[in-house]
Amino acid sequence: MIQPLRKDIRISLKGRVVDLSQEIYHQAPTFPWDPKCGIIVHNTIESIGFNVTQLCMSAHQGTHVDAPYHFIEGGTTIDRMPLEVFLGEAVLVDARHKKPREAIVPADLDPQTDRITPGSRIVIMTGWDLVFPEARYLTDFPVISQELAEWLAARRVALLGVDIPSLNMADGPVVHRALLGAGIAVIEGLCHLEEIRATRFLLVAAPLRIRGRDGSPVRALGIVDDG
Amino acid sequence: MIQPLRKDIRISLKGRVVDLSQEIYHQAPTFPWDPKCGIIVHNTIESIGFNVTQLCMSAHQGTHVDAPYHFIEGGTTIDRMPLEVFLGEAVLVDARHKKPREAIVPADLDPQTDRITPGSRIVIMTGWDLVFPEARYLTDFPVISQELAEWLAARRVALLGVDIPSLNMADGPVVHRALLGAGIAVIEGLCHLEEIRATRFLLVAAPLRIRGRDGSPVRALGIVDDG
Repeated sequence: MIQPLRKDIRISLKGRVVDLSQEIYHQAPTFPWDPKCGIIVHNTIESIGFNVTQLCMSAHQGTHVDAPYHFIEGGTTIDRMPLEVFLGEAVLVDARHKKPREAIVPADLDPQTDRITPGSRIVIMTGWDLVFPEARYLTDFPVISQELAEWLAARRVALLGVDIPSLNMADGPVVHRALLGAGIAVIEGLCHLEEIRATRFLLVAAPLRIRGRDGSPVRALGIVDDG
Repeated sequence: MIQPLRKDIRISLKGRVVDLSQEIYHQAPTFPWDPKCGIIVHNTIESIGFNVTQLCMSAHQGTHVDAPYHFIEGGTTIDRMPLEVFLGEAVLVDARHKKPREAIVPADLDPQTDRITPGSRIVIMTGWDLVFPEARYLTDFPVISQELAEWLAARRVALLGVDIPSLNMADGPVVHRALLGAGIAVIEGLCHLEEIRATRFLLVAAPLRIRGRDGSPVRALGIVDDG
């Protein structure tokens, strides 16, 4: 049995709440290697007195967290990831100048580079979520380069969040392994990052406690202090 | 399309993080009217280079949020619930003196009554989660009485959280309707509340953004400031 965590965290929440999560719905887009998304009426007020829905989906449906075990044999599973990683200040990087399928490289983080230190949470905004749910959302997105993945791993950041549906297509395995192998939590499929309108915000995005598995859909929220 | 929220919230997070969420796992306990819980290996590192899990479960599996639409025709669905309800200070009520199947009544909230005002988040600890995953966990739990549900509705609380798997068995419909019909968010199946060791804590428990449905599994966290 997993014990409750007792780590100290120290953050403050004040301001606007921005919903950074894609909607989950019946037949929402998925990659070919994922189970399909089925949001199924199981019982209803008419049939038994109350509505009950069956959820069938990939652990990587929509806005979701990748655990190291997604790509690393013996890697940390989603239920064992430290909760503190998913609760705290994040740095927002504006990469909306990137074109479809273009690689995001360390130079794209330049204005924020000084803020990227061990334990940082980095969220990269490409604006690609605006393409959702078109078919090209899953195929033509700008990508995290191997170079950037290794750069972030070398800086020992705690978390990388992106508004693209996966880190990379052609180089997906090597890029995932570079980040997940370094123990970096990955959140894919974020949205609405343009509503943050600040370079720092508070990220709240704890995954479901799914025993021993590779990922989880998540409700990701950004809290912005405009004060 | 739902717009990101822009409501102001003002809370502070400092201290220990306590995981208040039950584990989700293959064939985890469910009520007879719920879909079964299937956590299924869909693809593996050996088969395609990475692990992908299929999640099949009730929207009310384990620790979860009930939306008004669970019991109320035309009621607010889970994706439309205000996020601020799930982020903020909660009052913890100790009801561990209650016996199996015993009704929890307004008098059981006595030491905390003054703190229960419009917008309050109330979390009732019975300790029943310690019985999980025995079969009686789903049948013999202490219950929220109709009297208490109506008392909380009259006080216009924002949220009720419980460490029992449902609000009530025999009187389930009337008790759910009293709370959900008043727009009160309900979180069922919490655990580890004894680790809070304080009468106030910060609750973080935003449900998945499931379009138009009746509930969602949730990662519920308690943050306790011991300082």
